[in-house]
Amino acid sequence: MNQRIAVVEKILGANEKLAASNRLALDEASVLGINLMASPGAGKTSLIELTLQNLRHQFQIAVVDGDIATSIDADRAAAAGAQAVQINTGGECHLDAVMLQEALGQLNLDEIDLLIVENVGNLICPANFQLGTHKSILIASVPEGDDKPYKYPGMYQGVDALVINKVDLQPYIDFDMDYFRRGVEALNPGLMTFPLSCRSFEGVEAWINWVRDLATAS
Amino acid sequence: MNQRIAVVEKILGANEKLAASNRLALDEASVLGINLMASPGAGKTSLIELTLQNLRHQFQIAVVDGDIATSIDADRAAAAGAQAVQINTGGECHLDAVMLQEALGQLNLDEIDLLIVENVGNLICPANFQLGTHKSILIASVPEGDDKPYKYPGMYQGVDALVINKVDLQPYIDFDMDYFRRGVEALNPGLMTFPLSCRSFEGVEAWINWVRDLATAS
Repeated sequence: MNQRIAVVEKILGANEKLAASNRLALDEASVLGINLMASPGAGKTSLIELTLQNLRHQFQIAVVDGDIATSIDADRAAAAGAQAVQINTGGECHLDAVMLQEALGQLNLDEIDLLIVENVGNLICPANFQLGTHKSILIASVPEGDDKPYKYPGMYQGVDALVINKVDLQPYIDFDMDYFRRGVEALNPGLMTFPLSCRSFEGVEAWINWVRDLATAS
Repeated sequence: MNQRIAVVEKILGANEKLAASNRLALDEASVLGINLMASPGAGKTSLIELTLQNLRHQFQIAVVDGDIATSIDADRAAAAGAQAVQINTGGECHLDAVMLQEALGQLNLDEIDLLIVENVGNLICPANFQLGTHKSILIASVPEGDDKPYKYPGMYQGVDALVINKVDLQPYIDFDMDYFRRGVEALNPGLMTFPLSCRSFEGVEAWINWVRDLATAS
């Protein structure tokens, strides 16, 4: 297994260098880069649609969509008014900095204010691969259950903000918000959280304002 | 990247050999082995609890729980009456045949009729690693969304049965069951499916009967 570990470390090291170069490209063009990560079905694409609807008149927004197959998400982002680039990872379970670099090559960064990267639906692997974006956001969702911070600590530790989606389903699900929040707090003290529903729109305003402030400042 | 591909192929080849050896060990002891895979929060542990409640008086059941951290799931399985073995993968995003082999070493297979393996919550990586079990089961869940077969085809292609959990939430969610089923049918024609709810218990009987029949025959 040593050969495997050596290869993995080499890959992660190379990835970090490319992530730094992606960051530089974003900074030089004054683009705010956001990396959205979540389980399959937590609501990444829905949150992107909603963000586009609220901010597309104020900012030029591009979306890079990572999927192991299909362009369903990129099509939805394009329909919601973004310049959308699809990355099909060919089975890979996460995006990496090489893939983002290739996607950035298809965009004119000087015409963009906000870049949203929708990572592959996976609560484990994407946490290990920096992309070069400024903020890493995790979307949890109420139906996933309140034990997820305890079971997927790596993902919860490494993010800059947490969206808790599908709060409209709380009446129909056994989800202990206090237990969930205690798990989050132990892993990532003081983490900014946005409980909201992309379906009922409750709580959405705080998220939109946060992104707007970040995009304005960058 | 060639070095990486060579290493991955070597790992997968070695894994298949070990999976065959696990299968032999299960067969020699007349143990039915089931590999449960799903996204985080689709309901693997809940389905195991429910299966234990219904079948533990008829069969000796062991559960092997794979997680990247904590023993929450193994504790739940033990509380529901199973002999439970916890595998902490140390960050790995899937179980492999080596891990199962180690877990089998902690069980007396001659005293067991049914072995349920709860894989790590992940809709991508576990599909690539055979464990040696007889049946691979995928649990989808209604809140994950109806587009998941299209977006995670590898997982849907490789399984022997599909549980569609949380159907009690259908009234509160935009989930097009026909669209979902068309996606499944295209990838895995004639796949046995069990729409059910581990919370309301609707549809559970068909699943329990199916497992009972398999365990009786093995």
